[in-house]
Amino acid sequence: MTSAAPLTVVIVGGVAGGMSAAARLRRLDEHAQIVVFERGPEVSYANCGLPYYVGGAIAERESLLLQTPASLRSRFRLDVRVRHDVVRVDTAQKVVEVMDLDTGRRFTQPYDTLILATGARPRRDEPLSDVPVRSLRTVEDADVIDASLSRPGVPVVVVGGGYTGLEAVENLVARGASVTLVQRGPHLLSPLDAEMAAPIAAEIRARGVDVRLGVEVATAGSGAVTLSDGSTVAAELIIDASGVVPETALAEGAGIRLGETGGIAVDSMCRTSAPDVFAVGDGVEKLELVGGDTALITMAGLANRHGRMVADLIAGRTETVRPALGTGIVRVFGIAAAKVGWSERQLRAAGREFYVVHVHPGSHAGYYPGAETLSMKLLADPGSDAILGVQIVGRDGVDKRIDVVATAMQAGMPAAELAHLELAYAPQFGSAKDAVNILGYVAENTRTGTTPTIQWHELEAAQEAGTTLIDVRSRAEFAAGAIPGALNVPVDELRDRRDELPDGLVVVHCQVGLRGHIATRILRQHGVDARNLDGGYRTWRDATLRRG
Amino acid sequence: MTSAAPLTVVIVGGVAGGMSAAARLRRLDEHAQIVVFERGPEVSYANCGLPYYVGGAIAERESLLLQTPASLRSRFRLDVRVRHDVVRVDTAQKVVEVMDLDTGRRFTQPYDTLILATGARPRRDEPLSDVPVRSLRTVEDADVIDASLSRPGVPVVVVGGGYTGLEAVENLVARGASVTLVQRGPHLLSPLDAEMAAPIAAEIRARGVDVRLGVEVATAGSGAVTLSDGSTVAAELIIDASGVVPETALAEGAGIRLGETGGIAVDSMCRTSAPDVFAVGDGVEKLELVGGDTALITMAGLANRHGRMVADLIAGRTETVRPALGTGIVRVFGIAAAKVGWSERQLRAAGREFYVVHVHPGSHAGYYPGAETLSMKLLADPGSDAILGVQIVGRDGVDKRIDVVATAMQAGMPAAELAHLELAYAPQFGSAKDAVNILGYVAENTRTGTTPTIQWHELEAAQEAGTTLIDVRSRAEFAAGAIPGALNVPVDELRDRRDELPDGLVVVHCQVGLRGHIATRILRQHGVDARNLDGGYRTWRDATLRRG
Repeated sequence: MTSAAPLTVVIVGGVAGGMSAAARLRRLDEHAQIVVFERGPEVSYANCGLPYYVGGAIAERESLLLQTPASLRSRFRLDVRVRHDVVRVDTAQKVVEVMDLDTGRRFTQPYDTLILATGARPRRDEPLSDVPVRSLRTVEDADVIDASLSRPGVPVVVVGGGYTGLEAVENLVARGASVTLVQRGPHLLSPLDAEMAAPIAAEIRARGVDVRLGVEVATAGSGAVTLSDGSTVAAELIIDASGVVPETALAEGAGIRLGETGGIAVDSMCRTSAPDVFAVGDGVEKLELVGGDTALITMAGLANRHGRMVADLIAGRTETVRPALGTGIVRVFGIAAAKVGWSERQLRAAGREFYVVHVHPGSHAGYYPGAETLSMKLLADPGSDAILGVQIVGRDGVDKRIDVVATAMQAGMPAAELAHLELAYAPQFGSAKDAVNILGYVAENTRTGTTPTIQWHELEAAQEAGTTLIDVRSRAEFAAGAIPGALNVPVDELRDRRDELPDGLVVVHCQVGLRGHIATRILRQHGVDARNLDGGYRTWRDATLRRG
Repeated sequence: MTSAAPLTVVIVGGVAGGMSAAARLRRLDEHAQIVVFERGPEVSYANCGLPYYVGGAIAERESLLLQTPASLRSRFRLDVRVRHDVVRVDTAQKVVEVMDLDTGRRFTQPYDTLILATGARPRRDEPLSDVPVRSLRTVEDADVIDASLSRPGVPVVVVGGGYTGLEAVENLVARGASVTLVQRGPHLLSPLDAEMAAPIAAEIRARGVDVRLGVEVATAGSGAVTLSDGSTVAAELIIDASGVVPETALAEGAGIRLGETGGIAVDSMCRTSAPDVFAVGDGVEKLELVGGDTALITMAGLANRHGRMVADLIAGRTETVRPALGTGIVRVFGIAAAKVGWSERQLRAAGREFYVVHVHPGSHAGYYPGAETLSMKLLADPGSDAILGVQIVGRDGVDKRIDVVATAMQAGMPAAELAHLELAYAPQFGSAKDAVNILGYVAENTRTGTTPTIQWHELEAAQEAGTTLIDVRSRAEFAAGAIPGALNVPVDELRDRRDELPDGLVVVHCQVGLRGHIATRILRQHGVDARNLDGGYRTWRDATLRRG
């Protein structure tokens, strides 16, 4: 026997997951034959940069194109074929059938191992009457949108207020377009809860964008769009950022099992139901940490990481995926919004038990200029104290805090342990008690009942049932804007004015929750059944913003 | 029996740890008598802000004063006495003897529980001849320094190139002083290793500061300082940032045990050797994670956290300290330098086994404007893969990455697991493979021997022993500056030019390590015993900077 012939590995899809697999495999196996088929005209492009190319922050189109077939051939000896559509997989014969989109020629390519990195496609891509519809997933999309914005004031409707939709809005405004943002759900950024997302909508509106919540596009034509509430909006272009669905036709046609989510089903090694066929990226359902079940999470980081791991497996190493957290972030007009894990809405829908904490610490020490107030929401298991989800919104330091929490969550750290993290402190960067530490302290005070809280959405019912609401802020703060029905007793006067308070349940609140916590502790020790309004006036105000 | 009399808790020291204990204790126990004695004129001031008040970034002196005795009395019913020096503790009688520094009156104060938060004092505080010496620890220090800088060009010598020394330098330059920085050790920032600290010295020199390494102040007089190498430098003021020693006189006088480090010895609940006497903050030695032993770590975050924990214990809760990581960060002239855990020098001195990784990833996606190159160094255990230390230097995103690594380290996550962290990615904030992920990937490649490396300090000896050094960067990069003796073979030509390479050990390198990794993988599979120069040209250049 001579030594085995080189392995032939065929990869369908040449962007994030597929290209990570190809490059890593070459580093581990210099002799494998690695063939990448990509339907589009480009491989390995920066699709997360497309909105910023449209907006002009990324000036050079070339900087989006991270690799070319030629560069991949010279560095990695990859056989990369763009504009090649894999139309069929025969898992019995272990061949793929490929069509060259430029010539129409069909041919078959055998494989020893196949990696499906087919990605996802826009949920909706049919044109609406004579108004063109574009998603923002490919360089070609960006080129077409760019060309549509040749004069100022072009009316554009963006459908979908998720990460991509918000990035599109910011960049369309930067180009002088007249933008309407249409969101089917009741608030923007559906991975976040309403009170966390509300400041984003307010900011976007302040930049002149017409934000329409709770509606869909019904029909379009003659330069306008009609929404489901009957209103019409001018539109020369519709940008569809309403989400994506896994591209599974190829897998389905090959009899490869799909999961309940509609994505390709894979095990913890990204193996599909067919022998020697792996799948990674946006086309695949992921094992998700909080639910312990599969979910569709379309994040470039996961695609890259899983692609690389599959190369390790093919090269004979042992590795498994980590359950996904769904960590995500978006910045729009200077506000960043980030999340990890589940939202309150998701937990409620699944009937999970949880407790909630809202805090508003500074992004760094208050005595040093430039600190911004963060809004942070934590959801944790009241039994195990496992972190179930965190949402953070603010103008500075959001990315750092979500990454710290994601790391803690991935490590299985309970919420109260966040208080003990020894984070780097200098006044430009944080505080001796960092925002994440504060989140941990308040979590512990809440879970242990040290300071019982009520949530913003429970306040109205409590007030209707006769509960007294005490605003413990200063007189000046109270005068500048207060919750209807609140009585102002500054925290420093509470001990002396205890007799003015009723004996039943009393809800106290301050601006962000800290003085309310102090007030609650004082009152409870003086025999008052006090609870703190979680997140204070600020969370209440954010939550009620959305009604405006 | 009637209910117990309120507890009397006496706290010595009213800044970070002491004041955290006092405020938390009041929140848990409304009835305790809490007396805080502070020797200085202020309590609870922002000592980490003092350099920035001197420099002008913090404009208002009042913003340094976070609390006053009056505000603490009205909010927390604390009995705070400034300018009161506790001169003796009698642990048998459970009383402290106190001197009112304004009146000279002495009195005793009984306690049920005593908390020593006496802090640390400058290592050197004697005046040097007629040149005044000031540290930068109190508001009074800042006032005196501020007053000394009334005209431009005042010559100031800063002694000590640690966190505080560097912050002092930046702010003195901002005030127009003519600054000399004197550092006893061979490089600035001794918690970091030489090659990591070198760019900081280069930057500070570029701002016109005279940086003197490896020398001490010998004598001073007549407006000048003589250094240990015989040179003299003009000086109207010396700022002593050469470090601090625990303030232990009070504890020692009371027969309370000190540790081998010279700090007050405490157990995992901050209990001293005397009954009912706790100690927290800079006067106390800490249990340290990497060494598993006690160490002096003077960080405001630890003082605050431990002070709060002691209040929990006094209130009957159960809690223990977490071993300290020594997380720290400093920013000087736009460069941030951060560390967690041990340096290579510390590990080497302790005879610990470790492996090293240097990487230079971008602070965010390269295709989005504004990304800065980070320099990251990881030290990990070759057996367990435990993270022993990380150092990060750069102009953007340093604080985020050190906090993520500190969290991973505190959670006991092995180095390779950093690759799997699911961090938030949008192009302004990170990359699909974040800098921390890259650190994890390279750690794994190094530890598993996938790509064997050599370190910058091993290169010269290897070259002298006849090892070929191949620079796999482009011809243009090579021409712009190369390591002496290196042969230029761009990575994309390696396969075709394999025959030009010798059969023995070959060291390859690129700019930051990635192409070197690819080259090493290619060559090893073509039968060459190749190793990658860890951190590439950039780490080598930084390391050799310090010789300049």
